[in-house]
Parts: sequence; structure tokens; C-alpha cells
Amino acid sequence: MSDRTPGGLWITFEGGDGSGKTTQAALLQEWFEKQGRVVVRTREPGGTEVGVLIRDIVLHHRGDIAPRAEALLYAADRAHHVETLVRPALARGEVVIQDRYLDSSVAYQGAGRVLDAGEIRDLSLWATGGALPDLTVLLDLDPAHARERLDADDKPFDRLEAEKSEFHHRVRDAYLALAAAEPERFLVLDASQPIDVISAEVRERLAGAL
Amino acid sequence: MSDRTPGGLWITFEGGDGSGKTTQAALLQEWFEKQGRVVVRTREPGGTEVGVLIRDIVLHHRGDIAPRAEALLYAADRAHHVETLVRPALARGEVVIQDRYLDSSVAYQGAGRVLDAGEIRDLSLWATGGALPDLTVLLDLDPAHARERLDADDKPFDRLEAEKSEFHHRVRDAYLALAAAEPERFLVLDASQPIDVISAEVRERLAGAL
Repeated sequence: MSDRTPGGLWITFEGGDGSGKTTQAALLQEWFEKQGRVVVRTREPGGTEVGVLIRDIVLHHRGDIAPRAEALLYAADRAHHVETLVRPALARGEVVIQDRYLDSSVAYQGAGRVLDAGEIRDLSLWATGGALPDLTVLLDLDPAHARERLDADDKPFDRLEAEKSEFHHRVRDAYLALAAAEPERFLVLDASQPIDVISAEVRERLAGAL
Repeated sequence: MSDRTPGGLWITFEGGDGSGKTTQAALLQEWFEKQGRVVVRTREPGGTEVGVLIRDIVLHHRGDIAPRAEALLYAADRAHHVETLVRPALARGEVVIQDRYLDSSVAYQGAGRVLDAGEIRDLSLWATGGALPDLTVLLDLDPAHARERLDADDKPFDRLEAEKSEFHHRVRDAYLALAAAEPERFLVLDASQPIDVISAEVRERLAGAL
């Protein structure tokens, strides 16, 4: 993001459901706020009012959505979110901590479904004018392990969560390939570690980078 | 559309609001049905159940939508509509008569707004796997004339209708440029003519092509 004020910082969390993104995002927010930083916690899809409407279509519509339509809906949410929420916050010098960004689209729709991963990435980059985070934390977890955590939560699955196990293994592989291709942007952490170990590793990477 | 059964025919109507698209589509449907053809009347945005939800966001959301988000929402509607409704109907050999297609996006969002017309077209073509109609009827009308017709209707304006007059002139110019670039696909008609003159011209073009 070239148009930001010095001090603006954009961190995204990636990983399967049950990998601990929400927990780690909350701990990181606390850490930044203790330093007196203004933090914006957000997510995709659904980080804006328009995004909530789009999220409702892609995650909860009964019946199939054509694969390209689904990809375009995620990209629409992303375009609106980055332009109306992320860019303004970064321009004010704030810290944006975000649950899922374009890597989710590439991993889930590209590698996991019937569409080309490169086309999904290009679509997201067109949607946002090429905006990429300063740091992307990938919470890597074996899908079987994630499944156990989600079962323990005993909450209802949405459409994506209900996809079968093989799909989640392809998503994990896609994530790891994305991280390997952009080591400067990604921090890959073993999400089966204790919560405080993971949060310390995130802070260490940020301390080194800032 | 290369994957259709012989006999499948796809006709789109384009033009500003008030140019008579609905009237002409109804007359053309009647003409085909008198010949024993099965006709599917549809529209974009909103030709499917998912599309109705998307249409509601783009046309009736209070507050601005980022321009790229709007373009992506129209493309999402189009992707789902073509894959789940248009292609299957054409494959059954039916006649699809459609109110607005990708030319609307290019004319309204590309030429009328802040986005590049070529990028909007590419987005639509990606969305639909390159699907183009057999015939596109452009009902060309001076925006001032269209305004008089809409005022006479006395119905409330949606967000696009409320855009100012200069915008509608740019849309008209964009439509005419699209038609000039693809004379084999387009039939441009003077929409200020009597209804039966226009409908006869559409039938004449179809009779010659079939």
C-alpha cells in the first residue's frame, strides 16, 4: 500500500477454520493497544455493511452458486472493504488486523475448487488496485486437528465448513505454497502450539520488522 | 455460445431506461411463441434467485458502493445467470430474450463512471466464459426524450436513474460505439419510432438471420 501515512500497518491472518485466527488477532490487538496504537479489527468477507450482505449470499445461500459468481462476490466484498475501510485506516496511521484476505480466495476457490488460482489472484488484485498486507500470518494446522477443535465447539457448520476433508487438505497445501512463494510477506506458524507461544512468535516477527 | 443445441437463440435488448426494452421484449416473445418456440424472458441484474439478492445490493443499497465492487457485483450476477439459466435454456434449443447484458455494464460503468471500459468487458467475459448473444438490439434514444417518458410514468427512480443527464449522454455515446464495433451482433434502432415499426424491424433482422 503506497498511499499510507508512516505508521499505518496492515496484518492479515490466514488458515483454516479452527486454526485460532480470532484468538491470535485479539491478542495482537491487545499488544498494539498497550503501545497506544489505534487498531481496526476487521474481516473478509463481511467487514463492511455492503460486505455483510455479500457474505450472507456466499456463505448462507441455499443452493449452489456458480463458481465464477462466488469468486466475483468475494472480490466485490474485497474491493469495497479495501477502498472504504482498510485504505482510510492505513492513511490515518492505524493498525489494521484482518481475518482472511486474498490468500483465502486463492486457497479455497483456486486450489480447492474448479477455478485457476492465478486468475483468482488477479481478480483480487484488480478488485483492490493491487493492495497487499505488510504481514500475513498463516496459522498452519492439520485439517484433522482443526476438525477436532471445531467439533469441540459444537457450533453449526456453514456451507464452506461442511465441505469434505479432502478439500481441506488441498486448501492447506495451497496456503503453504502461497507462503513459500512470498516468504517476506508470510509468517507460517504451527497452530498446534500453545496460544501464548504462537502470539509471542507473531510479536517477535513484528518487532523485527518495525 | 458454442455449446448450444441447434435452434437455441439468445437475444439481448440494450438502451437507457425509458427506451422501450420491456415493450419490445414482450412483442418479440409473442412473435416467437406464435411460431411454437419456447421463450425464456430474463434480465440482468436479477435474473436468478441469487441475482435478485445481488440486484438489491447494487440498485438499492443506501450509501456509496466502491466502483470496482459495483462492477464485480454485476459480473457475479452475470456469471450465475449465464451458467444456471441462459446456457441450459440454449442447450434445450429455447429462445432467450434478455433485458440488459454485458453491454450495459460497459456503457454504464465503463464509459459512464471511473473504470476502464475494456477492463469491464474483460471482467464480464471472464465471468461468463466469453458468452455473447446472437443478436443485441440497441434501442437508441436521446436521453431528454427518455426522461420525458419516465416522468410520464411517474414511478420512483432507483439509484442509477437518478444520475444526472450528462451521464446518460455518455452512456448513449458508449452504446453507439459498442454497436459500431460489432455490427454483426448489434441492431441499432431509433427508439423514438412507433412501437410497431420497431418490432417489425427486429423481426425483419431475425428473419434474415435465421
